[in-house]
Formats: sequence, structure tokens, C-alpha cells
Amino acid sequence: MADLALLQETIGVSFKKIALLEQAMVHSSYVNENPATAPIANERFEFLGDAILGFIVAEKLCQDFPELTEGEMTKLRSVLVCRETLACVAIAIKLGDYLYLGRGEEASGGRHKAANLAGALEAVIAAVFLDRGLAVTRKMVLKLLGGELQRVTEQDVGVDYKSRLQEFIQSKYQVTPAYRLVEAIGPDHSKLFTVEVMAGDVMLGRGSGKSKKVAETEAARLALEFISTNFTQ
Amino acid sequence: MADLALLQETIGVSFKKIALLEQAMVHSSYVNENPATAPIANERFEFLGDAILGFIVAEKLCQDFPELTEGEMTKLRSVLVCRETLACVAIAIKLGDYLYLGRGEEASGGRHKAANLAGALEAVIAAVFLDRGLAVTRKMVLKLLGGELQRVTEQDVGVDYKSRLQEFIQSKYQVTPAYRLVEAIGPDHSKLFTVEVMAGDVMLGRGSGKSKKVAETEAARLALEFISTNFTQ
Repeated sequence: MADLALLQETIGVSFKKIALLEQAMVHSSYVNENPATAPIANERFEFLGDAILGFIVAEKLCQDFPELTEGEMTKLRSVLVCRETLACVAIAIKLGDYLYLGRGEEASGGRHKAANLAGALEAVIAAVFLDRGLAVTRKMVLKLLGGELQRVTEQDVGVDYKSRLQEFIQSKYQVTPAYRLVEAIGPDHSKLFTVEVMAGDVMLGRGSGKSKKVAETEAARLALEFISTNFTQ
Repeated sequence: MADLALLQETIGVSFKKIALLEQAMVHSSYVNENPATAPIANERFEFLGDAILGFIVAEKLCQDFPELTEGEMTKLRSVLVCRETLACVAIAIKLGDYLYLGRGEEASGGRHKAANLAGALEAVIAAVFLDRGLAVTRKMVLKLLGGELQRVTEQDVGVDYKSRLQEFIQSKYQVTPAYRLVEAIGPDHSKLFTVEVMAGDVMLGRGSGKSKKVAETEAARLALEFISTNFTQ
């Protein structure tokens, strides 16, 4: 079995009770074959982890997407927390390497099954929550799912920050947000652009990046964050 | 519309931003008829509240029922967070009285529809979370759902604390928990009994009540709590 110290490093969480992380890695097939050494499987952790994950993703979607409807957020979340997405994330952090499996499960490729991998990831989320609390868990989940969140929101649902900001501002305030370049520093081959996005006279966000486009996107993203933090949803 | 001060008293939560609680009471039918005064419905709050509720209930079940399987907990939770149960809780706190409804919805009895009531309760949960954070929300949810939790776990699933403790202790340690009366104070017509539950020489919990049976149940409940807190699940 791979060393759990490496897993902790990968997920950026240092456990106080490492037994919790270990238990998260115990598949029920292992328990059946080793009832004395590992009496309990990670299935209860999966149950808890699934609920924590659903909550963290819902919270994040509400914060970041003040203009989406309940239905749109439900759709986004279902893509983000589906078995396939979770298995992809589990593969990225090599979670399969740490699983305790029974012989039969091992022989039938259990280390690479999407259900086992997704379940193990949920169990790790629960273990982190039980050991370190919600804030640490939230941070880890958003880091692990960050790439998927961006992919899903940009591709699957087709939302990008600039369009989202424009739709929101137009519907609420009947003005179109405008972007203005406020700074461009550094040599030509590695300039850093800074852009502000305005709604009328109000500066909503300021973003920087290696191109105007990236800076504008960042400014729009921060503007949406600002709106969701400062206005009743 | 009933006074939100009363609702805050009923749910035991004092809001910093009362606008959040107000928004939780806005049904989409009201928004359609009054887009200027109430531009946003409570549907996004429902989405968030549903996720928070699912998480809090999962956490509670994991804590209180260390011997239940993932499947049993899933079943319990589905009963606890179903529309009918939530509507019952909403009725108990008279949530219907506070709803902002459109005329059509009002005329068709919208103030008494299970979907509207359950949704409003979820929205209130989200509003409390956004205003006061998780700890206050957890406390409120467990208070509001406490009766349902007890009913569901005792009746629907047929578990009671003493049997559950016995099953758990027998399966893990091959001993049967024993109850001993340690104190009985007060006059005959209002005695208070205190009971300890032991597994071999180890005292697992101590409970008090107006009868030995109540004291034993309480001791068993605390023993299960002690076990779930102190042992890896």
C-alpha cells in the first residue's frame, strides 16, 4: 500500500488522527476477508462525505453564480458530484494506490473501478471533515474540484464570467458593464495587464493577467464575487 | 404578513440582516406579480438550504448511530428530509403565515401546499446559514427536526437506544451492557432516577429521568454518543 504521508501531501491536509484517513481507504471487500484487522469499511464515511461534498459545492455555486437559477445550479452540481467526475479527481491524486481491497476485488480490477474511486474520494472528504473540520475540508474540496468546476461551468453549461456579469448587470441595472485598461507594466514579451470593469460610475472589479482578455475575465469573476458577497442573493 | 420578529423567536435565531429571512419567504409567484419590489424569489435559497439540511442530518446520523450501515442511514435521511416531513415542521412553526405569495397562488391555497412549505423551510435554513453561519444553523435544524428524528428512528426504523447499544457492544466486545441504578432522589411522587450503563467494568454512560426506563434510555443514548465521539467509526 502506498504511504499515507504522500496522500496527505497531495491533498494538502495533515491529519491529527491518521486512523481516520486509513479507514477511509478500507473497501468493504477487504473487511470481509480481514474482519479482525479492519472491522469497519469506509461506507459510512462515503455517506457523510457525499453529503459534505453536496453542501460545499452548493455553497460555492451560490457564491460564484449569483445569476443562475436553482435549476441551473442543480444541473451544474449533478455534473460536478457525479461518479465519473469524482473518479477522475480520485485518479488525479492516485487514490487507487491507497485502497485496501479484498483479493477478489483486486483481481477484478477494483483499484480502477469508478465506483470504488469515487466512493474513496467521498470517504477521504468525510475523514478530513471529522479530523480537521469544515474549513479545511472546504478548502481541500475546492482545490481538488477546482479544475472540474471551471471546465463544467465554462464548457458544459457554457457560462463564462464576462457574459454572466453582463447578463446580471443588464437585468438588474439596465446598463452594460464596460472594461477599461488601467495599467500595462513590464517588458513587451511579458506584460501584465490590469483592467477594471465598471457599471456606470461604479467599479465592480479589477483583474490582472498576461493578456487583456485574461485580465478582463478575472475582473468579471471578481465583480461577480463582489456582487454575491455584498448583495442579498 | 405575520411579523418576522415572531418567526425569529420561534426558530430561536436572531438575524443580523433581516432581509435574508425576508427573502426566504418570497415565493416565485410573488416575484412574477411584483418584480419591482421583490426582484428575487427564494428558490436559490431552497437549493442551498436543501444541501445544508442534507449535510446536517447526515452528520447527526453518523454521530448518533455508529452501528447503522450506509444504506440504513440513507433510508433514515430520506424519511427525515422528505417534503412531507419538512412540511410538517414548517406547519409547526406556522411558516405559511409568513410567505409572500402571488394572488393566484394564494387563491389556490398556496399557503398550505406541502411543496411551498417545505421549500420555505429549506430557504429559512439557507438564510440562517448565510446570516449566522453553520453552528447556529445546525443547532436550529436539530431543534426543529428533533421530534421527527426521534419518531423516525424509533418507529420507522424500529431502533431504540438500548437495543442499538446492546447490538453494538455485543458485536464489538462480546459482552452485554448492564444497567445499574446509582441514585433515586426526591419525594415519591417526583423521584429522579439516575442509571449507569456498563460494558463489563467500563461505565459507558449515565442518564437521569423520572422513571428507571427513561433514565436507562438516556444512559444508552449518551453511551452511543460517547462511543461515536471516542472511537473511529
